Amino acid sequence: MAVRAGILGATGAVGQRLIQLLEPHPEFEITALTASDASAGKTYKQAAKWRVDSPIPDDVAEMTVSATDPDAVPDDVDLLFSSLPSSVGEAVEPTFCEAGYVVSSNSSNSRMADDVPLVIPEVNAEHIDLLEVQRDERGWDGALVKNPNCSTITFVPTLAALAEFGLESVHVATLQAVSGAGYDGVTSMEIIDNAVPHIGSEEEKLETESRKLLGTFDGASLSHDDVEVAASCNRIPTIDGHLENVWIETESELTVEDAKAAMRDYPSLSLRSSPDQLIHVFDEPDRPQPRMDRTLGDGMAIAAGGLRESTFGLQYNCLAHNTIRGAAGASVLNGELLLENGYL
Amino acid sequence: MAVRAGILGATGAVGQRLIQLLEPHPEFEITALTASDASAGKTYKQAAKWRVDSPIPDDVAEMTVSATDPDAVPDDVDLLFSSLPSSVGEAVEPTFCEAGYVVSSNSSNSRMADDVPLVIPEVNAEHIDLLEVQRDERGWDGALVKNPNCSTITFVPTLAALAEFGLESVHVATLQAVSGAGYDGVTSMEIIDNAVPHIGSEEEKLETESRKLLGTFDGASLSHDDVEVAASCNRIPTIDGHLENVWIETESELTVEDAKAAMRDYPSLSLRSSPDQLIHVFDEPDRPQPRMDRTLGDGMAIAAGGLRESTFGLQYNCLAHNTIRGAAGASVLNGELLLENGYL
Amino acid sequence: MAVRAGILGATGAVGQRLIQLLEPHPEFEITALTASDASAGKTYKQAAKWRVDSPIPDDVAEMTVSATDPDAVPDDVDLLFSSLPSSVGEAVEPTFCEAGYVVSSNSSNSRMADDVPLVIPEVNAEHIDLLEVQRDERGWDGALVKNPNCSTITFVPTLAALAEFGLESVHVATLQAVSGAGYDGVTSMEIIDNAVPHIGSEEEKLETESRKLLGTFDGASLSHDDVEVAASCNRIPTIDGHLENVWIETESELTVEDAKAAMRDYPSLSLRSSPDQLIHVFDEPDRPQPRMDRTLGDGMAIAAGGLRESTFGLQYNCLAHNTIRGAAGASVLNGELLLENGYL
Amino acid sequence: MAVRAGILGATGAVGQRLIQLLEPHPEFEITALTASDASAGKTYKQAAKWRVDSPIPDDVAEMTVSATDPDAVPDDVDLLFSSLPSSVGEAVEPTFCEAGYVVSSNSSNSRMADDVPLVIPEVNAEHIDLLEVQRDERGWDGALVKNPNCSTITFVPTLAALAEFGLESVHVATLQAVSGAGYDGVTSMEIIDNAVPHIGSEEEKLETESRKLLGTFDGASLSHDDVEVAASCNRIPTIDGHLENVWIETESELTVEDAKAAMRDYPSLSLRSSPDQLIHVFDEPDRPQPRMDRTLGDGMAIAAGGLRESTFGLQYNCLAHNTIRGAAGASVLNGELLLENGYL
Repeated sequence: MAVRAGILGATGAVGQRLIQLLEPHPEFEITALTASDASAGKTYKQAAKWRVDSPIPDDVAEMTVSATDPDAVPDDVDLLFSSLPSSVGEAVEPTFCEAGYVVSSNSSNSRMADDVPLVIPEVNAEHIDLLEVQRDERGWDGALVKNPNCSTITFVPTLAALAEFGLESVHVATLQAVSGAGYDGVTSMEIIDNAVPHIGSEEEKLETESRKLLGTFDGASLSHDDVEVAASCNRIPTIDGHLENVWIETESELTVEDAKAAMRDYPSLSLRSSPDQLIHVFDEPDRPQPRMDRTLGDGMAIAAGGLRESTFGLQYNCLAHNTIRGAAGASVLNGELLLENGYL
Repeated sequence: MAVRAGILGATGAVGQRLIQLLEPHPEFEITALTASDASAGKTYKQAAKWRVDSPIPDDVAEMTVSATDPDAVPDDVDLLFSSLPSSVGEAVEPTFCEAGYVVSSNSSNSRMADDVPLVIPEVNAEHIDLLEVQRDERGWDGALVKNPNCSTITFVPTLAALAEFGLESVHVATLQAVSGAGYDGVTSMEIIDNAVPHIGSEEEKLETESRKLLGTFDGASLSHDDVEVAASCNRIPTIDGHLENVWIETESELTVEDAKAAMRDYPSLSLRSSPDQLIHVFDEPDRPQPRMDRTLGDGMAIAAGGLRESTFGLQYNCLAHNTIRGAAGASVLNGELLLENGYL
Repeated sequence: MAVRAGILGATGAVGQRLIQLLEPHPEFEITALTASDASAGKTYKQAAKWRVDSPIPDDVAEMTVSATDPDAVPDDVDLLFSSLPSSVGEAVEPTFCEAGYVVSSNSSNSRMADDVPLVIPEVNAEHIDLLEVQRDERGWDGALVKNPNCSTITFVPTLAALAEFGLESVHVATLQAVSGAGYDGVTSMEIIDNAVPHIGSEEEKLETESRKLLGTFDGASLSHDDVEVAASCNRIPTIDGHLENVWIETESELTVEDAKAAMRDYPSLSLRSSPDQLIHVFDEPDRPQPRMDRTLGDGMAIAAGGLRESTFGLQYNCLAHNTIRGAAGASVLNGELLLENGYL
Repeated sequence: MAVRAGILGATGAVGQRLIQLLEPHPEFEITALTASDASAGKTYKQAAKWRVDSPIPDDVAEMTVSATDPDAVPDDVDLLFSSLPSSVGEAVEPTFCEAGYVVSSNSSNSRMADDVPLVIPEVNAEHIDLLEVQRDERGWDGALVKNPNCSTITFVPTLAALAEFGLESVHVATLQAVSGAGYDGVTSMEIIDNAVPHIGSEEEKLETESRKLLGTFDGASLSHDDVEVAASCNRIPTIDGHLENVWIETESELTVEDAKAAMRDYPSLSLRSSPDQLIHVFDEPDRPQPRMDRTLGDGMAIAAGGLRESTFGLQYNCLAHNTIRGAAGASVLNGELLLENGYL
């Protein structure tokens, strides 16, 4: 029997991707959609400017949108996916959790909170049990789990694959697609024949979220990893797919061949949305590329390539689909993890 | 009286920029144009597919193109600018120098040769006197001076400005415009809605040319600087302007304010093509941007911005117009330096 | 002595271009800048997000922005340029005219009003005297003159040049740059790797404004031309420069050579912003192109090319810089016409 | 039992799409691949620079490429798909047909020959029987069928749907994607922030192929339709999907609602690659758009929208995926028609 799923912030770019991913999903069934008060009461078709490249599902089109409020959401919901703007998420996600809802959220608020698990299932599934600490501390019947920022998700799996060599330092430069800023986030005048070497707060997210994701949960509290990360973030004229240049220094010697093997052998999970191969490693020096490789593993794989011995250690490039693996798909995957681990 | 200037490889993208820059130049007069044998004997207008955004000068349009051969070039030439493909440059530049021509070359061949000065005048003008060593060793009446690769020119002036703090290590990621590959270098299918994390040999150029440029010439030989540089190069869908993310670690403590001051105070030269302000430093975090800032100082300035304390040291972004400051303008500037220093 | 000029709506995309054009203009001096109430009282530098590709002039940067209200504007103003959103223009332009101001407006409101001259000086300068009718009818001391829509300006000069052959029908398809919609008008998600075959009300503007521009003013009233025009408008991923495909049928036979001659011979004016050659005709079949040809005549020329005998008559392509010739430059040119004709 | 299919010109952009479409096709099995002599003897993986957005099928990767010569092609081939450059197609397609091969060709050579059927199955399937005339006249055991140019395929189905109203005249402006020129056909310097209002011979193809497609085959010879068509062709910075603006005049009155109904009701076929709905009609005025709508019907549907009463008749926009419906998919569909009609 399918888990009844609602979507908080269903009309935005990530909300639309969530609908696209959940609609054919065998384990989840969409039963609630929320948006701003201005949209409440409208059909989804009226409320949303549909923008993804498959038609809006017929039954979703006719669903009535609710306000984003625990009192307004229909009763038949087991799990909420949240793609709210972070300021809204900050305000309302706790009210849903307090009202007993389990929330798998893509919003950036509370990601670094001590008792909120920040999870990429293939990397740190065991952090999910921080939810027990959360429930104890907050007295919630519900629960709040977060997935990281899209640019963080792109490179952390490759770091996890290399962690056995002892990560010491990481430099990462990102070339990020415009969809990461939402539908209206980047104007065409800003980005055509251009690049913008700044995305607000993004560098800090890569630097801090990565350490939390690679950290250790001892059943009571979470220690962040001590790898030092420096990030530089750029927006480029690409629709989907974040490309990242990474340099790492490790305690143990790390050859190109060892790194490729570690990435290829890094296990995926049997969750429905996990790709068969988590990290797809290219031998061609000019791959991965956003338009060519963002849909590997239905947009849920990480692509890596360009591995070479750098002046300082190893350098390589990695890529992920920012609105699937990096946002909507990440939240769905966390929903699957919640289901498997008995939180629903 | 104007220096009579020829252009080797005049029909290519950099050759066209050379014409655009030399035509109004008060010190140089275009007297010879060469191209491949297939173009020899044609008017320039017939031989070249003109692509820069100002009309082809009338007198240049009607000039007859010569083969790229010392015997074919008209006699009335004091200085040759070379924008040949490197394989051609490798073969023919020495024959011109041996025949007595002074060559200011943008081609990548011989840049790292011990007796070939690699010069950005504002950075290492004194290296030009390596030409005396060159003439002694090679028995040339002519001379060969090189400007660095476009992506090298973009960040080396900022390193030079910070050298007083003791450069230890540099990581640099580049976001390079398509014009850097020449007119036919990047197909539209390769780059629209995409980025390519690889440019053949480019990373090595940044890593090695930067050390030569920052090195010391003692009148007899050149020592390369020992700063360690690691580069990662990307092509993005931008017409002109290379943007670079830089992280540096220095021996002395380096604050953001000290770095800004050092860059702003770094002197330009009084050569005609040198900009009034060599390094333009932005306080806005999202600048420089290629389309907005590539024409600063008529395309000859370096733009910097986004300075912040990084996890490891300082990080910032820099930008230069790759076909002006990074190629044609760099060769013209070296021509001006040759003139000022009595090599013509 | 310079005409003292104010700009209504000075912070928008066209307002910025107006500043860029007026600042070095020998006949006009910027003495007032207005914007929305939220910006009133700020310096221009604080109020505007400056986006054009030359730095903001120092003196303009420090000017104080006024509210867009006749009572708020400084007294020392002889002429107002208006680049207000049309809904705002509709409301406030008449109040300025009533208060005695002469307004040269780019806003789309009132363009088709019987007593408002719609002028491209090289095409229908004589329509400017409709202002006397306007003043009579409205009892204004001021006056209101309009320039047409950017896409209208692009093709009407070519029609005017061919009018002697008896225009019967015109089909025109436009490929319009994103800057035509203002800085925030087109999101990057809408247009990268895409085209949008619809621009609200644009087709009607081409179809009706062209007939007014080609009409006849008899000193008392204006008759519209009876040429029939059908337009289809598209937005494409280009920054500046509207390209248009035109098919025309004429009463008299019209050969390609006759059409080229008529366009080349069509006179420009001696107004300061008029280009030496109004219509630049290319013989190459693949020109004009936006990025290559939009800056002809400092952005004030019309480029035409691709003339060929069509199945039905003649077909050709034309191009103009939409924010210079098509907007800010058009308003400045009308200001120059007002000055020459004694309306200031 | 599957039809054994070879691909002439298998390494190019259309050849790659053919592989992508044929590999999962239940009725066809790829048994031969040809390319230039330089590639003969290599594995396909070595010979082709694979560029489409799904991985190269494993078994195809290891196939040996033959020269494009009847003597070099393996024996076990029932049907050849041809995506040769037209100059090569002109020379070699007849030699294959003479050698007994049935060829479904996308190459532009011979499309207008009197005895060569030019077919869009949903539009003029009955023209396929012109092959009997062809075999008689040429004495071939094989046969040659052509699909039209990509830009022709995009608008002809909409004309066919409206033919009952009596087509008199058609104006069509195209906005064509770069993939239509093949992988290397359009450089990035040509098209980023630009548009090119010329594609060699393309306008003539739309004007003449459309009349042949809409013509009548009486069992002995083919009469072309007498609708008059004028085309203007543009290349824009879009990867896939040709968008076209169409104006038509008809003998009978044609309302927007009648036109929509005629398009929606126009029948598709039961061939495997025919879409369920041939023409998808949008009511939204800003659709179809290339990136949003090119994959309708797995890239085999035609999208139409923006229907409105024009100054002269009806105007609308249409769109098709140029390398699927407009090229590789068109050839596969003709292969299916050949199979159904007993030509294999």
